[in-house]
Amino acid sequence: MFVTFLSDYGRSDDFVGVCHAVIARIAPEVRVLDLTHDVARHDVRTAAVILRRALPYCPAGVHMVVVDPGVGGTRRAVAIRVADDDRVLVGPDNGVLWPAAERFGGVVEAVDVAHSPHRLEPVSATFHGRDLFAPVAAHLAAGSPLGAAGEPIDPDELVKLRLPTPYVEAERVFAHVVSTDGFGNVALDVTHEEGTGAGLRLGSSVRVNGTPATYVRTFEEVGPGELMLYEDAYRTLALAVNRGSAQEFLDLGLDDEVRIEP
Amino acid sequence: MFVTFLSDYGRSDDFVGVCHAVIARIAPEVRVLDLTHDVARHDVRTAAVILRRALPYCPAGVHMVVVDPGVGGTRRAVAIRVADDDRVLVGPDNGVLWPAAERFGGVVEAVDVAHSPHRLEPVSATFHGRDLFAPVAAHLAAGSPLGAAGEPIDPDELVKLRLPTPYVEAERVFAHVVSTDGFGNVALDVTHEEGTGAGLRLGSSVRVNGTPATYVRTFEEVGPGELMLYEDAYRTLALAVNRGSAQEFLDLGLDDEVRIEP
Amino acid sequence: MFVTFLSDYGRSDDFVGVCHAVIARIAPEVRVLDLTHDVARHDVRTAAVILRRALPYCPAGVHMVVVDPGVGGTRRAVAIRVADDDRVLVGPDNGVLWPAAERFGGVVEAVDVAHSPHRLEPVSATFHGRDLFAPVAAHLAAGSPLGAAGEPIDPDELVKLRLPTPYVEAERVFAHVVSTDGFGNVALDVTHEEGTGAGLRLGSSVRVNGTPATYVRTFEEVGPGELMLYEDAYRTLALAVNRGSAQEFLDLGLDDEVRIEP
Repeated sequence: MFVTFLSDYGRSDDFVGVCHAVIARIAPEVRVLDLTHDVARHDVRTAAVILRRALPYCPAGVHMVVVDPGVGGTRRAVAIRVADDDRVLVGPDNGVLWPAAERFGGVVEAVDVAHSPHRLEPVSATFHGRDLFAPVAAHLAAGSPLGAAGEPIDPDELVKLRLPTPYVEAERVFAHVVSTDGFGNVALDVTHEEGTGAGLRLGSSVRVNGTPATYVRTFEEVGPGELMLYEDAYRTLALAVNRGSAQEFLDLGLDDEVRIEP
Repeated sequence: MFVTFLSDYGRSDDFVGVCHAVIARIAPEVRVLDLTHDVARHDVRTAAVILRRALPYCPAGVHMVVVDPGVGGTRRAVAIRVADDDRVLVGPDNGVLWPAAERFGGVVEAVDVAHSPHRLEPVSATFHGRDLFAPVAAHLAAGSPLGAAGEPIDPDELVKLRLPTPYVEAERVFAHVVSTDGFGNVALDVTHEEGTGAGLRLGSSVRVNGTPATYVRTFEEVGPGELMLYEDAYRTLALAVNRGSAQEFLDLGLDDEVRIEP
Repeated sequence: MFVTFLSDYGRSDDFVGVCHAVIARIAPEVRVLDLTHDVARHDVRTAAVILRRALPYCPAGVHMVVVDPGVGGTRRAVAIRVADDDRVLVGPDNGVLWPAAERFGGVVEAVDVAHSPHRLEPVSATFHGRDLFAPVAAHLAAGSPLGAAGEPIDPDELVKLRLPTPYVEAERVFAHVVSTDGFGNVALDVTHEEGTGAGLRLGSSVRVNGTPATYVRTFEEVGPGELMLYEDAYRTLALAVNRGSAQEFLDLGLDDEVRIEP
């Protein structure tokens, strides 16, 4: 059984390593897959998008997220089961799990794990990854039932994270920045099919917030420094600058609206 | 069986990966837990503190540390067994293993592994992680006895690393900086109980090296940019600035004395 | 069975994690060893050197490299079997696998995996690590025969990467920069034996591109800031500055010629 692990802990401290260690003590046969630990600190939004995108590629199991600006405060800590694939998500109830849960059919069972019998006592105020989420994930991955991990709660009470909705007209697409990566590529929230509906054509020129670009399939089709629109690895449209940064080129931030015209 | 691995190798080269590979060749069933590899280069002191803090959360096994400014010189390379949990620590004899060994009941058996039969020959002058420590750790984790890993030495001859001692008065605590993390949080060497003995009260104002701060339980209790004193995840007092860096705010370095007054 | 994984994906995104996840879905019992993911973006040359150097220390298995500036273009994607140890290398056919294959006796079987039955459909234009290389590596590591991974191709048609050749005279060595590491140490392409043939003597002074240096065994033999020549962990000569960067000190880049005289 696998636990996937996504956080904003970074790698310069031993936070990630200690969470791995805690899981190994409780469930030595469980393996942990690190998605990434370099989410910007407290960026719940980006972590939610990464989890939603990555989950279809992950073996069904326990999926732990620790991006938790409210740690030690009043936010709930939860473990939730989704309808499809029987996956269980573990993390703070701040919306970070929500988009992934929606993609997998919604939440069918949820427990509050703040006082989980699996927790490491005394639970610190600042390191719930180690004291709460890792031990809960380890026990669940080792086969312990979800109901034994905490107190049942109504799935309708979970914090929802709503992403902006793109708007497609006959000759115009209003998309939004969903995420950016370390190369400065910018992922949007419209699909190739939606773009086609608005008159965008592969191989043709487009305008992105008024700036000329080309709608291509690969980076090789534009010259260095040129802006391109393409279908990215997650089946949605994206912006890139060949050997450069589209994010910097267009000065874009998360959720910014991006107008694309043929 | 697990090997934990802590080093200052960083991740930008293949040093860590090659050590993993060497262990996998020798003992394919052994699993390696990376604590962190981003200890500042040659910072024996911080590595010693990280190991001592992390070890109670790690499954008992072999615990390898490679922070080794004297590699290739005259310092000894050792494997030592501690009294509690039957754990074995492997690394250079420069004090990096000492505080952890003390916490686990002291050293009951020690061997010099410089000429270990487990070593990869010819041993390079500069990469003992690969040629010496990883193969020794792998064989030990695979069940080979400690006595077969090298020449026995007197545990009293091991290099000791002594940390500064805090001093508590009726209305004042003299603590020291034990470590800082990537967020700029500063761990001290006094406990909440010691602080209480000096008149510090949760929820009250304190002075830290003369600077006003608040003694709180969670980050939510102070505003952005404000200095706070709190009990950290390792049960000792620590300093933080909400959404900032206490290390920079107070200009603190390792072992610096920190005066706290109610 | 092990898959080793080397790339320029970095760690700040979830690219590496998703490749791990894909392998775990297909072959849960296979373990992945990360060599490093911090090769400079698109630096095929350095990745080729790292693979060639690291491979002898890795358990025989499947060795995946994703440093792939031509992804989505016309370059081939391949899996190749080498003569020695029965190792299989997987990656883009841009030369990155070539030096390692040469060291292991050359290529005895090669397949083009662009349309591999193992691929994840639809294959994206930009993320062949996830859609092509990881699934192919996973199936191969799980025991699927190489011939089932793609269309056979003539090994002679593979892209070759030739490294510069050092030149040794009676009183002079012309070496080249093979790689540099995160500490600024500079690996060259001549061995200690070749250096001895040119009159270089351990413990003596040498000149490196006209700059005075000392030929030593360990970092302890020169003072801080001093340039040293030494045999590095891979049995070739290298340059370092004690507690500094030889790369910056001598302003050296990849493949630069380095003249060493007694």
